[in-house]
Amino acid sequence: CSLTEKQTNGSSPNIIILLMDDMGWGDLGVLGQPSKETPNLDAMAAQGILLTNFYTANPLCSPSRAALLTGRLPVRNGFYTTNAHARNAYTPQEIVGGISKDEILLPEMLKKNGYISKIVGKWHLGHRPQYLPLEHGFDEWFGSPNCHFGPYNIMCFPHLTQLYILFEGMDFIRRQTEAKQPFFLYWAADATHSPVYASKNFLGKSQRGRYGDAVMELDYSIGQILSLLQNLGIEENTFVFFTSDNGAALMSGPQESGSNGPFLCGKETTFEGGMREPAIAWWPGHIKGGAVSLQPANVMDLFTTSLAVAGISPPDDRMLDGLDLTPVLLNGSHQLDNRPIFFYRGNEMMAVRLGQYKAHYWTWSNSLEELKDGINFCPGQEVPGVTTHDQKEHTLQPLIFHLGRDPGEKYPLSVLSKEYQEVLCSVSAVVRQHQKTLVPGMPQLNMCDLAVMNWSPPGCEKLGKCLKPPTSAPWKCNWPH
Amino acid sequence: CSLTEKQTNGSSPNIIILLMDDMGWGDLGVLGQPSKETPNLDAMAAQGILLTNFYTANPLCSPSRAALLTGRLPVRNGFYTTNAHARNAYTPQEIVGGISKDEILLPEMLKKNGYISKIVGKWHLGHRPQYLPLEHGFDEWFGSPNCHFGPYNIMCFPHLTQLYILFEGMDFIRRQTEAKQPFFLYWAADATHSPVYASKNFLGKSQRGRYGDAVMELDYSIGQILSLLQNLGIEENTFVFFTSDNGAALMSGPQESGSNGPFLCGKETTFEGGMREPAIAWWPGHIKGGAVSLQPANVMDLFTTSLAVAGISPPDDRMLDGLDLTPVLLNGSHQLDNRPIFFYRGNEMMAVRLGQYKAHYWTWSNSLEELKDGINFCPGQEVPGVTTHDQKEHTLQPLIFHLGRDPGEKYPLSVLSKEYQEVLCSVSAVVRQHQKTLVPGMPQLNMCDLAVMNWSPPGCEKLGKCLKPPTSAPWKCNWPH
Ligand SMILES: [Ca+2]
Ligand SMILES: [Ca+2]
Repeated sequence: CSLTEKQTNGSSPNIIILLMDDMGWGDLGVLGQPSKETPNLDAMAAQGILLTNFYTANPLCSPSRAALLTGRLPVRNGFYTTNAHARNAYTPQEIVGGISKDEILLPEMLKKNGYISKIVGKWHLGHRPQYLPLEHGFDEWFGSPNCHFGPYNIMCFPHLTQLYILFEGMDFIRRQTEAKQPFFLYWAADATHSPVYASKNFLGKSQRGRYGDAVMELDYSIGQILSLLQNLGIEENTFVFFTSDNGAALMSGPQESGSNGPFLCGKETTFEGGMREPAIAWWPGHIKGGAVSLQPANVMDLFTTSLAVAGISPPDDRMLDGLDLTPVLLNGSHQLDNRPIFFYRGNEMMAVRLGQYKAHYWTWSNSLEELKDGINFCPGQEVPGVTTHDQKEHTLQPLIFHLGRDPGEKYPLSVLSKEYQEVLCSVSAVVRQHQKTLVPGMPQLNMCDLAVMNWSPPGCEKLGKCLKPPTSAPWKCNWPH
Repeated sequence: CSLTEKQTNGSSPNIIILLMDDMGWGDLGVLGQPSKETPNLDAMAAQGILLTNFYTANPLCSPSRAALLTGRLPVRNGFYTTNAHARNAYTPQEIVGGISKDEILLPEMLKKNGYISKIVGKWHLGHRPQYLPLEHGFDEWFGSPNCHFGPYNIMCFPHLTQLYILFEGMDFIRRQTEAKQPFFLYWAADATHSPVYASKNFLGKSQRGRYGDAVMELDYSIGQILSLLQNLGIEENTFVFFTSDNGAALMSGPQESGSNGPFLCGKETTFEGGMREPAIAWWPGHIKGGAVSLQPANVMDLFTTSLAVAGISPPDDRMLDGLDLTPVLLNGSHQLDNRPIFFYRGNEMMAVRLGQYKAHYWTWSNSLEELKDGINFCPGQEVPGVTTHDQKEHTLQPLIFHLGRDPGEKYPLSVLSKEYQEVLCSVSAVVRQHQKTLVPGMPQLNMCDLAVMNWSPPGCEKLGKCLKPPTSAPWKCNWPH
């Protein structure tokens, strides 16, 4: 509040990415959550632009986050597995791999224009020393490499932690502002990941149970952050983007997971419920308030768009999947409407969206064996031939949906229709081009080894809890879905 | 526009009910329709109050409309059938019955304070002479008794008609305003009922196909009506309520039906998708803009609330199901939070909502036979033990859902939980009280007869299309679901 002089030199606006964990498209009031418990996010949308066709790059934490920070599909940046066909993979404690040194992360790029970067919250790009945030361009880090697992079997964030997550973010903003230092804050709160949690002030406050309490606290926290920017007078010099890393984790049940609104299935699947995310861009004085964009966009665009905002050219020595959205966000341009969005599991392209159409080349929810064990990625939903329990190939005749008429992916176009034939023609050309030029990165999520677990975390000596790692005995990780 | 003097005497504010046909909760941008194509309704919500827990009285046109205009459940006002257990019924051309002379309709009550009333659009409370609108308190009528059927097999509204529906409504508003005459406009557009239609200017404009075109035109029309009120300077003297008569008709497919958002199933069912409706109250200067109310409410409240707005005491010689919502709408009162909402099929109470809980005493989507014929009220949705295809009784142990945590009705509470036992206790008391005092009206929708069809509609002589009615041969109507 001491700074009244507005920092609007414009050459290096601050950048804040607010990334939620497993929050669903339908969890925001402005996107139809019936209890309407997100007044701050709804206000953020009213002051900014709401993107209703925004996607993640993968329906799971680690690959989604790797894609956001590299601007590249997981199949390119290495955050995938080839152990079995079309499997989701992430970074449990026993994972050997992590984000490669060959990848260039957003904070590394931003350094070129003198940005200071901080990650607050969940990293999830590998926990071995060489993979940690400070090795990949971040200057500060508060949080943990993974979450919800570990040799000590503790949650990485205890019940008070959302307060720390908020404090650490706000403190960073305050310090950099005082130092007149352009900054990048990657604020990756994980309160909505099962086991969900909220601080005492929010417990029991929601109509939606504990999950809703967590959403309410995150909404409150984001309101605090935006207010701080305004109080510091830097709101017109700070580009803020809100989104989530994947769809709501429906398999966790109603107390522990959110809503994907009208969309099919959830986390772990390449249906809309797994991939479509809430998304709001906010930048007073630059982005017109109350706008809605139907632009198909994704988390990889945040890499490219952030660089554009910072006035930095993207790396030219590699293929990027992200596009610069500033023409869309700042000027309402429709030039990018026909860019494709790809949906992967592992190194298999499961589906592609082009314009309003989405073509599924492979369908799979999860296996019948898992389903029998009570794991269900599509509870209460069953679309014959679509939410298949075997890996069903449609490459010769993809299932095509019109997402405007049928956002729930329930009614595939008739293959005999003219519409189908025309769409197939244009989609096929895009897919051929994509696959022809695709060079997969080295898969980082193939190998597991108990020896790489964090047996001796910092401070373990004092607690007498340092453990001796077992002998290395790597195996191919088992990725069941 | 000629009237600049504001009419705000307050004793007899105008009343406008905008009733949509088969429009779903999820069709409004402000309620999460991904294409966000309802700018006027979204603005209406921003200037008024959005009720996210608003219900119809029955998941079908006729009983819903009868309930709205009488303030009474269909089982009381006669708009139901006893031909078979728990069946939905309406007024096809061959129906013998209609709205009883013993019922008091809203326009009849409003006459007491000198209101002039007009219905524009769909009536659906019986087409025989004694059942028509002008016999039941309306002073003007533009529209048709039924829709989409008839001996001539014409749609009741041709493609141009939404323009007439709009014109007739606006013309009425203008005329009454000029005459300084308090008015009630019941604007019952049916463009979103299959076969959906839109005027030329809107065809092909939506991302959502023809259904979306119809929604866009209705949204435009409502914007025109609200603008007219403002231009006439009567917006602070006109109470406007927007809602729909039942959930989206999912069985009609993606081109011909809308979205029920995150809710289960649709039209014809007593799940949330069939019963929960979009609802907005708008009254500048009286209702605080941008408010959201979680008040459980329903169309029958519109009868009682309209009377309260008009300063008229409700009839005291009969049981009313509607409550006066003005404390909720005008003052944000929470006193009515624990009022029950009943869900019927025929004369069977299928379910009841109390607070956040909904207890199903009977479940039924539709029969397996219908399902095999391709009729599906829950396409793509199948919740074991909930969306049952036989009429499943749970009266001894109702299925109970917490609609805040689980708006999609997928996770019944465990009957062993303390929560279940406590809820059952309070719900049972409410149900006992309801059933003990319930006196069913004479069922109007039991008998059909080809002789009552409209064989000689007005003007048939000129066209040479008058037909001779067959001999009367009544039968018990067959209501399949
Ligand atoms: Ca996640
Ligand atoms: Ca209807």
